[in-house]
Formats: sequence, structure tokens, C-alpha cells
Amino acid sequence: MPLKMDIPALEAFLKAQFPQVAETFRIEAVAEVGLTLRLLTDERHLRPGGTVSGPAMFALADVGVYLAILASVGPEALAVTTNASIDFLRKPRAGADLLAQVRLLKLGRVLAVGEALITSEGDDAPVARASLTYSRPPQ
Amino acid sequence: MPLKMDIPALEAFLKAQFPQVAETFRIEAVAEVGLTLRLLTDERHLRPGGTVSGPAMFALADVGVYLAILASVGPEALAVTTNASIDFLRKPRAGADLLAQVRLLKLGRVLAVGEALITSEGDDAPVARASLTYSRPPQ
Amino acid sequence: MPLKMDIPALEAFLKAQFPQVAETFRIEAVAEVGLTLRLLTDERHLRPGGTVSGPAMFALADVGVYLAILASVGPEALAVTTNASIDFLRKPRAGADLLAQVRLLKLGRVLAVGEALITSEGDDAPVARASLTYSRPPQ
Amino acid sequence: MPLKMDIPALEAFLKAQFPQVAETFRIEAVAEVGLTLRLLTDERHLRPGGTVSGPAMFALADVGVYLAILASVGPEALAVTTNASIDFLRKPRAGADLLAQVRLLKLGRVLAVGEALITSEGDDAPVARASLTYSRPPQ
Repeated sequence: MPLKMDIPALEAFLKAQFPQVAETFRIEAVAEVGLTLRLLTDERHLRPGGTVSGPAMFALADVGVYLAILASVGPEALAVTTNASIDFLRKPRAGADLLAQVRLLKLGRVLAVGEALITSEGDDAPVARASLTYSRPPQ
Repeated sequence: MPLKMDIPALEAFLKAQFPQVAETFRIEAVAEVGLTLRLLTDERHLRPGGTVSGPAMFALADVGVYLAILASVGPEALAVTTNASIDFLRKPRAGADLLAQVRLLKLGRVLAVGEALITSEGDDAPVARASLTYSRPPQ
Repeated sequence: MPLKMDIPALEAFLKAQFPQVAETFRIEAVAEVGLTLRLLTDERHLRPGGTVSGPAMFALADVGVYLAILASVGPEALAVTTNASIDFLRKPRAGADLLAQVRLLKLGRVLAVGEALITSEGDDAPVARASLTYSRPPQ
Repeated sequence: MPLKMDIPALEAFLKAQFPQVAETFRIEAVAEVGLTLRLLTDERHLRPGGTVSGPAMFALADVGVYLAILASVGPEALAVTTNASIDFLRKPRAGADLLAQVRLLKLGRVLAVGEALITSEGDDAPVARASLTYSRPPQ
């Protein structure tokens, strides 16, 4: 299945729909099986010790899977997150951006499911993993 | 087991440890079995349509369970979230604060587990539920 | 919303649909907000030390939420579990039956979500908690 | 880190510790990063339509991650599952065995986390994904 949106189209969509957070993320790569999303860490995401907060990692995974769905189905009316499960595995590196490798596991008519593996830039050990389910609007 | 921290002590701790987010939350009640935490919604938490974002609800549940642990054990060195699972059930009411009813299910030497039921103020239908696990530092 | 199935109707449905497991469970109570399901523990559910296995607790929560949905909507074509999250909190009591207190949190046209709090009979401390999502078939 | 247990050692351990279920599983491959576990489906695992039940898939993921931990750390006193999250993605193929590709994401002193991707033999589309956390006993 060819992609329906490329990086510029996805970033424009994100900027239009989620202006509060769009500047925080940058899409590094997109392909049929998934995409790579970067969290440009800034002071608002940080916790004592300079590591990225849990909610910021949650947002990274959530936006990442959402964009991967959009890339496959096009800019349809908004899908809604219905479930998320996240394991925090290691402390992120202080000062480093986070990278989420996102993969779609299911793209059904009603539900879509994806997962994200999050690392600190420059370190392969996973910082967090997350799986998210989206309910797609009736066609 | 008597509580080791009351509302002013918990709010002071939150303000000292998490200055970026402390002003966002207000503790409504605290008791041995759990507490009630309010998210004072503002523009930063909102999504198109005026509803609160998923990451903001995640943060509400995360901070709520964390505070419930602190209330029971006192201001110990930081416990760390290791796992979170959240179900988004209904769209929050536009413009309303969110309230999380938090309950501790386990307070072990190594792990603590709590759950949060989130509603929009003025409406009993749950907006989200979450369960979170924290790893406690070695004593 | 009045219940559409009572205990005998639910047990008959379970026996017809899931003959392999029906004899394992007994419905203790059913009401609009949820139900109580008993796992009659036997040797097949046990692990070393005489405690009930994780998969048996998973099955208890899964069947419990499923029955709570049926009680509300009637014997409709099978809903399917799409997500489950479970926290194992304490070792179950050796030799005791398990009881799941089940509560429906959402009963939508497409998705239903419920949670179960599992205890060993005769002990209030929770052994496990679970939340489960079901996808309902198109009407 | 070299493996501390190979397939025969793991299968012997499983048979000694979990005699009720050991015959149900077969380890296909084991390596430092994870292992592949087969569920030999039989009548007890099936649901109407001939597909494998949710609890049987849960057990496959649970045993798979457990064995992957053992392969890395050796036959230590039993680790305990503390959390599991599972997404059911597609109906398994009727009559086919299930295969779980297991990967360890974290092997800490206190907690270990792994994930499993489950497919029906002969079909690459994932049937389920699961992530599990184990609490390791004090050394």
C-alpha cells in the first residue's frame, strides 16, 4: 500500500491540527511500515536531573503512531486514542533528543494499533516502549 | 497507617520538585485510601474542540498516583514510574477541569501500584482510567 | 438501563459458547453496574506453591467483563477482546477461590471497556486488577 | 552476555517447574536478544471457530518472556509477573500453531521487561502483541 502523505504533508497537517505541540516534533523518516519521530527536548519536557518527563514520552509515542496512521490512510477526520500502554525502561540521557521508531501492527476499518520504541539520540538502549490503539471514525 | 503528608506538605513538595507543572494541579482531598487531584485546564492542555489532550490526562494520573504514594510513605527520594496503562473512554467536557480519583492498590517495598478514574467536573461518566506502577528506591 | 440477562441466562450462554471453561466459573451476583465472578480453582490453574496462575487470572477478568457486557446488551453475536492490561499485585491465597468484582466503564456502540478487581476469597487485599476492551460487532 | 541456558536446559526447567503446561510449549530458537516459542495448539486452547483463546495467547507471551529471562540469568529463584499488557490484533488461523517472537527490552537487577509478537504459523500478520514486566527476587 503506497503512502498517502509524505513528510511535508504530515508536518503541515500536524501544524494545522495541533499548533501547540507541532514545533516540538520533527519527522525524521516515513515508510510503509512506520516512521521515525524526534522529540526536540526543551525545558518544558524536563524533570529534575534533566531527563524528559513521562508525559512528554507519552506524547511522542501518541503523536508518532497517529502520524503513521495518517501516512497510510491520508488526512481523514481525526482518529481518537482509546488505549495506551507504556513501559519506562531507562532514564533518558540528559540533554538528548528522543527518537521514536513507530510501527503499525494493525490498520483495520475500526481500530488501528501501533507501537513505538523510544531511545535517546546516540544510545541504542530503549528508554521506553509504548503501544497505542486508535478508534477510526466511521467512513 | 496514618498519612505522613497532608495537602499543604504535598503541594509544597510538588512545587519544589516539579515547578513546571505544580501550578497545574490542585489537591482536593487526601485520605489513607487515596486522593483527589484536579487538573486546572488551560490552553496548553487543549486539543481542537476544547477538550483536554491525552498527555495532559496521562500527567494527571501520573502525578495523582505519585502524590498518593508520597502521602503514605513521606517525602522519600523519588519513586519512578515504570509502567502506565490508560483507557480513554469519553471526550472530556470542553472548558471543564478534570478530577482524578486516585486509589493505591499496592504499596510494597519495591513496587507501588495505583489507579486513577478521571472525570470532567460536573459529570460522573468517566473520561479515562489509568493504572500506574512505580519502582521505589532501595531503602 | 435494565439488565437483559440474569444469572441463569448468562450461565447457560457461557456453557453453550465456552463449554471448555464454563464449569470453572460461577456468577455470584449481577447488577447494572457490574457483576461478581468466582473462579473455582482446581489443579489446572495452580502453580508451584498452590497459587493460581497468571493466565487463569487473566481468564477470570476476561470472562467477567464479557459477561458484564452481555448482561447489559443481551446475547449478541460475540464481542472480541482487543486489549487487556493486568497488574499482578499479591500472591493469591493457596487453596482459595478467586473473586472478580467487575465494573463496566463504557458501553459504546463500537467499544466496551470494563475493569476487574480480583481478590482471594476471605481476604480483601487485591491480588490483581485488570482492564479490558472489547470490540462489538456491527449492529 | 553469553546465554546461561540452552534449549534443553530451558525445557527441562519448564518441565520441572510447570508440569501442567510444559508439554504445551516448544522452544524453537534461543539467542541473546530473545527467543521463539511455539504453542502447540490443542482442543483446550480453542474457542468457537477453532481459534486460540486469549488466555492461551497470554500464557504463550508470559512463558516466552519468562524463558528469555532465564536464558540470560540462569535458573534463579522464580521471577514473578507484575504487569502484562496485550493487544489482540487479528483472529488466529484455525488449526495453526502460534509462534511468539520474544525480545528482552530490559534486564535490570529488580525488574525485567520483554515483549512478544505472536503470529499464526504460516502467516506473517501479527495476531497479538504483548509486553510483560517481571519482578526479580532479591539476589
